[in-house]
Amino acid sequence: SGPPGFVALDCDTVLDYCAAKPEVAAALGGAEGRGAWSAKEVGDGNINFVYIVSNGAGGAIIVKQGLPFVRVVGESWPLTQERVRYEAEALMIAHGYCPQHVPEVHLYDAPMSVIVMRYLEPPHIILRGGIIAGTVYPKLAAHVGEYLATTLFGSSALAIGCEALRKARQAFGQNEDMCALTEQVIFTEPYAKADNNHWTSPQLDDAAAALRTDSELKSAICSLKRRFACDGAALLHGDLHTGSIMCTESTTFVIDHEFAFYGPLGFDIGAFLANLFLAYFAQDGYEGDRSSQREWLLACVKETWATFERRFVQLWDERGVSAGNAGLTPAALYDAGAGAEGDAAAALRAHQAAYMREVLTDSFGYAGAKMTRRVVGIAHVADLESIKDQDARARCERRALACGRRFMLEAKELSIEDAVAMAEELRA
Amino acid sequence: SGPPGFVALDCDTVLDYCAAKPEVAAALGGAEGRGAWSAKEVGDGNINFVYIVSNGAGGAIIVKQGLPFVRVVGESWPLTQERVRYEAEALMIAHGYCPQHVPEVHLYDAPMSVIVMRYLEPPHIILRGGIIAGTVYPKLAAHVGEYLATTLFGSSALAIGCEALRKARQAFGQNEDMCALTEQVIFTEPYAKADNNHWTSPQLDDAAAALRTDSELKSAICSLKRRFACDGAALLHGDLHTGSIMCTESTTFVIDHEFAFYGPLGFDIGAFLANLFLAYFAQDGYEGDRSSQREWLLACVKETWATFERRFVQLWDERGVSAGNAGLTPAALYDAGAGAEGDAAAALRAHQAAYMREVLTDSFGYAGAKMTRRVVGIAHVADLESIKDQDARARCERRALACGRRFMLEAKELSIEDAVAMAEELRA
Ligand SMILES: Nc1ncnc2c1ncn2[C@@H]1O[C@H](COP(=O)(O)OP(=O)(O)O)[C@@H](O)[C@H]1O
Ligand SMILES: Nc1ncnc2c1ncn2[C@@H]1O[C@H](COP(=O)(O)OP(=O)(O)O)[C@@H](O)[C@H]1O
Ligand SMILES: [Mg+2]
Ligand SMILES: [Mg+2]
Ligand SMILES: [Mg+2]
Ligand SMILES: [Mg+2]
Ligand SMILES: [Mg+2]
Repeated sequence: SGPPGFVALDCDTVLDYCAAKPEVAAALGGAEGRGAWSAKEVGDGNINFVYIVSNGAGGAIIVKQGLPFVRVVGESWPLTQERVRYEAEALMIAHGYCPQHVPEVHLYDAPMSVIVMRYLEPPHIILRGGIIAGTVYPKLAAHVGEYLATTLFGSSALAIGCEALRKARQAFGQNEDMCALTEQVIFTEPYAKADNNHWTSPQLDDAAAALRTDSELKSAICSLKRRFACDGAALLHGDLHTGSIMCTESTTFVIDHEFAFYGPLGFDIGAFLANLFLAYFAQDGYEGDRSSQREWLLACVKETWATFERRFVQLWDERGVSAGNAGLTPAALYDAGAGAEGDAAAALRAHQAAYMREVLTDSFGYAGAKMTRRVVGIAHVADLESIKDQDARARCERRALACGRRFMLEAKELSIEDAVAMAEELRA
Repeated sequence: SGPPGFVALDCDTVLDYCAAKPEVAAALGGAEGRGAWSAKEVGDGNINFVYIVSNGAGGAIIVKQGLPFVRVVGESWPLTQERVRYEAEALMIAHGYCPQHVPEVHLYDAPMSVIVMRYLEPPHIILRGGIIAGTVYPKLAAHVGEYLATTLFGSSALAIGCEALRKARQAFGQNEDMCALTEQVIFTEPYAKADNNHWTSPQLDDAAAALRTDSELKSAICSLKRRFACDGAALLHGDLHTGSIMCTESTTFVIDHEFAFYGPLGFDIGAFLANLFLAYFAQDGYEGDRSSQREWLLACVKETWATFERRFVQLWDERGVSAGNAGLTPAALYDAGAGAEGDAAAALRAHQAAYMREVLTDSFGYAGAKMTRRVVGIAHVADLESIKDQDARARCERRALACGRRFMLEAKELSIEDAVAMAEELRA
């Protein structure tokens, strides 16, 4: 199956493929070295195949191929390969905004549904694994804050104006399949009876049942779903959990943009924060003293938001007050040099504060939704799943659920410090 | 100028045009009657040409043609004719949702930028003119409430689900030119120095100047602009003022959908309410006792919202709880018959109330923006412009500005009764 020109690769044919594509062969030092090349399939995700192709001389690239179905389920759950186009474009756009935290794309091959990109060499590992292993990443918050600020600001109407936003959004398209998947597994199933749902049972049976009768939470999730589907404010990653980040102690890269779509900024921010909180709540299920990592995780929540906010406003000050009528904060209103009257600088600061407050509110809402679905929905997180003792795991998960619920219901009132304090109290 | 195949019509050539198009000739009783046909140009709008073509035997149709520039300005303000495609599609879609309040389209001719539609025969007149003349329209609120509920519900994800919304939005496009125009004249210029701005001077010089230094209002208008550009929730009319409505005492039709785009529901509702409030504030500038019409206008505000809300929720109850995961209020959460747990009906009512509150908040925000721009921006309303005495007019306009400001700043707290009471107080 698959479109014309599509062939599913394997560890042998991927080498032929690389040799046949000049830009790929070049990245491996030239096709003439082909005899020394080798490939390994390392896809640990649920959906796609990922090959590391090494040239035997220390060089390597990543070849990622999307098949016309969900990998872990098989042909019975089809998925159009259009998602690979979205992923490739979003990767390239994000790399443009934030080259230091997004791998470079060497090739996007539409008929083959292949993306060839920079190999993030060891010691880069998937952040989630590093956190579970107890590692602390001192640069993570600053890097992810930078990634979020540059990509979300850069693709928003604040940077490019409303006209260009409309054009870019129309050209990018709607990533139908992946948005539909999100609507199913994040915004619907956790609050309903669904075959996909599972949880630590019987320990959390009551908590899962409570979600299905929680009218306040249902209203909150439906409001979040509405904005997910309607509020095309910026080009999002769309699935920014700690399994979509690769890092070392000094470097951080965001990968796997296949859920990219134009949506509300808080969806990406909330996804990342949710995964930090999930890791935080999981800690009590692990052996040994994790107190310093626990503190780091909460510091990371605060620093991510602080970095995001500071950088976003900085970019706004530098480039957000656009000259035209398409600007979201047009110079005519906010730039004294362009004739804006009154204390234009103070006016801009006041609007920026109001804007950031809305983004933070959305971030809490989406964070809560993500935490909830990771405990009772189709796809859980290894942070919690790796806790062997079911009672211990359920205790952690119950706290995560309680925290997620409060984030969703109290989003409008919470500061980032409140949110951290709430998590600490729920653990105490 | 214009695209290939485009010729600007006039009162003679429009007859040839109608005779040559079978579906148009048929609507006029057949091309063989052509000798008795006559045409009159009646476009009173700013942008396009509108011909009434009569067959001399009591039958008539409307031929509306868009030129590649703004009619009142001329070739110096170009406008792509793509807007006619948006208008034609939106008219047809709205007619599908609400045939009793939207004229039927006989023909859309893309190369000629022509829409041929039902002629709304006398005594249909443009609502704004009727109101200025002192007429009361007892059915207006019920009809416009019905129009708003059916079109906004029908095109939203509540009715069709998120997947279909994404598809419809992508297929419709972004109506670039007209949205850009709105961003300029509604969301930017009134709060800045702009050559297009004008107002009753010197009486309102201070009020206009105050807008340019009002940091709270600037923040509010920029937030409204952001949602205008980002929140693609439903297919809107996009310019629903009282000059886009034709009526008799017993019938009401919405015309002129050329600003149609996917946006926030409150933008259409607010536009209509704003024009009722503008008419209300204008009354004190007219001769004679207008007290009963004044009361009707405020009753109309309340009844429009009440009708809209009741019908919207009724449609939601009937068709909004969709079976799939794409539903905004999926059956799995809200339909006991589909397995939803808890008091699903009460949960749905609670969410509906929260949803309607958000729509009302948006409606006040956009109403305030529309009122403001009609007093100080490029395009004023005849309701106020027809007041000859400059001092009297300025008094009315100042109240409209004050009311608009409060709508924008207090939108979140206001009920529809509060808004009406506020208007009454500002007049007292
Ligand atoms: N650029 C890269 N460098 C190194 N390893 C990568 C790279 N991209 C992906 N991987 C590895 O492949 C795994 C799956 O990749 P990912 O893009 O997340 O696929 P999926 O879409 O299936 O989730 C990652 O968890 C990581 O281990
Ligand atoms: N279907 C119709 N039946 C009767 N008169 C119409 C109809 N459509 C337009 N008109 C007349 O033409 C005028 C201009 O039409 P409109 O669609 O508002 O054009 P514009 O886009 O230029 O504002 C209206 O104000 C009305 O007087
Ligand atoms: Mg992945
Ligand atoms: Mg992926
Ligand atoms: Mg008009
Ligand atoms: Mg008009
Ligand atoms: Mg028009």
